[in-house]
Amino acid sequence: MRIALDAMGTDSRPQSDIAGGVLAAKEFGDTIVLVGDRKRIEAELKNHDISAGLIEILHAPVDIAMDAKPTDVLKAEATSSIHVALDAVKEGDVDAFVTMGNTGAIHAIATLKTLRRIPGVKRPVLSALFPINNHRMIFLDVGANTDVKPEWVPQFAVMGSIYAQKVLRCPTPRIAMLSNGAEDTKGNLLIREASDLLRRSKMNFVGNVEPVQLMNSVADVVVMDGFVGNIVLKMFEATAHYVATLIRQEFRNDAFSMLGGALARPAFRRIRRQVDTSEIGGAPLLGVNGVVIIGHGQNSAIGIKNAIQQARAAVQENVIGAIRNGIAQEAK
Amino acid sequence: MRIALDAMGTDSRPQSDIAGGVLAAKEFGDTIVLVGDRKRIEAELKNHDISAGLIEILHAPVDIAMDAKPTDVLKAEATSSIHVALDAVKEGDVDAFVTMGNTGAIHAIATLKTLRRIPGVKRPVLSALFPINNHRMIFLDVGANTDVKPEWVPQFAVMGSIYAQKVLRCPTPRIAMLSNGAEDTKGNLLIREASDLLRRSKMNFVGNVEPVQLMNSVADVVVMDGFVGNIVLKMFEATAHYVATLIRQEFRNDAFSMLGGALARPAFRRIRRQVDTSEIGGAPLLGVNGVVIIGHGQNSAIGIKNAIQQARAAVQENVIGAIRNGIAQEAK
Repeated sequence: MRIALDAMGTDSRPQSDIAGGVLAAKEFGDTIVLVGDRKRIEAELKNHDISAGLIEILHAPVDIAMDAKPTDVLKAEATSSIHVALDAVKEGDVDAFVTMGNTGAIHAIATLKTLRRIPGVKRPVLSALFPINNHRMIFLDVGANTDVKPEWVPQFAVMGSIYAQKVLRCPTPRIAMLSNGAEDTKGNLLIREASDLLRRSKMNFVGNVEPVQLMNSVADVVVMDGFVGNIVLKMFEATAHYVATLIRQEFRNDAFSMLGGALARPAFRRIRRQVDTSEIGGAPLLGVNGVVIIGHGQNSAIGIKNAIQQARAAVQENVIGAIRNGIAQEAK
Repeated sequence: MRIALDAMGTDSRPQSDIAGGVLAAKEFGDTIVLVGDRKRIEAELKNHDISAGLIEILHAPVDIAMDAKPTDVLKAEATSSIHVALDAVKEGDVDAFVTMGNTGAIHAIATLKTLRRIPGVKRPVLSALFPINNHRMIFLDVGANTDVKPEWVPQFAVMGSIYAQKVLRCPTPRIAMLSNGAEDTKGNLLIREASDLLRRSKMNFVGNVEPVQLMNSVADVVVMDGFVGNIVLKMFEATAHYVATLIRQEFRNDAFSMLGGALARPAFRRIRRQVDTSEIGGAPLLGVNGVVIIGHGQNSAIGIKNAIQQARAAVQENVIGAIRNGIAQEAK
């Protein structure tokens, strides 16, 4: 298998990206195609000991800034690492693309310029894997579509369920819709109309859930509009980080607490791993004609390796073919 | 001052409610009018030592369930504690109403049956006080309006700013709009149109903020639609609770962690107080013709007393008059 990895994705590009790629090449034995400026990649590769053949370089001179706007990115020349890599997926030169780069740019270039939508897909969708008590839920949409129409939502559920089955190894995924209450009468217009469509479908829809239920792992696939999804994810991260900061502050407050904090350090390390979404590595952009896994810009080499592992599973299990069938079925 | 307190509001009604009322009567010297079933209130009052005159009873035989739907509540007879108390505010028999009861029922009865809107108010709005690093932000809307129109949002900002000035003692409140990114181009249609209205107004609008910025106290009044607001609050509570549960679990994992946890118990207690929204007691329903403070059903007597303190401040500072003026000004 050949997997393209954006060498210019993380905030500490290209170091972390390349370290993650090398780790994955060694562990999985696949060819990792590093996409980015050839000279910078070659210079960085000197710090690694890796047998030829496992690593290739695909030159892409332009580096898309993390804060570049999708509209500007679309107007720019097709020589960014994201554009070059997605072209390679489209041409079949590589089997998948993994990147820690600018999500808006990836979504725009994949959907409008390179891979384009799987036939019948109304809107491609960004997902996130949300880890609670070692159970991974897939959330979608988390940012591709800020104003969602009800009829798009069943497709989000179809695509999320296929990914949960094939890659997250969840045999019969439970689908839920995030709302401000579990009752059918709660929610805004979108929620009420979309959950009505889900209830009337043949899908394994278990109903609306509110945030506290997410923490009890009552569902495997959670659908929502991209605006709410993005805020919910950010709220989870911001709150977990805030609580961690409070703990650090309070543990400096008196000698007993300080000693307690020191003794409990391994416990805190285990907790951090459980709320750290970067441990998972990334999550798929679904609905386009190719496997694309997007991760956090702050990912470490291990996170990147984990993202590559997801891409491998998605290719091996032919997620794209399954989505093509699933969407065709849903249209009937 | 005379403040009506719903005796049937908390999950442990009427015990916690009455304990909170008694605490407030003793501390503030105001008359607390307990609204609910006279016999149950009289029986519970026997457990308290309080001088006559500080506590009165207003009989209301019906008890609204926490899960009762607003539509059913509106059809029911006007003999619930919520309805009777709001009538008393309307008639001027009491200066304010404080309740830990069913938010949807309070909003419906206040808006449609009793107090009704302040002239010019497009939609009354539910708020929440959000405590971060001992700085209290007011969030609104957090649930009254699930499908918000852009032109309602500047009024949310006016009402929230007045409350922040008068009751939260914040002289020049900074207004922000919650979005999925700080840039003007981010957000859904509602966010883009509403923040445009705010930018063009004379208000102290500091721009859009995303969740992580909330934790840095960059604003005092944060406006959002009621669906998103409700989910964001619930996500904060659910995440803080989830992290606390992880900590408890991990601290049972090995002897060092267990000892560490035991030593750090006072630190944890201080942290809990900082993320516990019930410590604040309650937050106002704004835009109706009277002071109404609504709190969590799980509030303790101290939380209820704190909610009553907010009601007192709102009456003393004539928040209703200020909102009446503010809305009239805004219409110009």
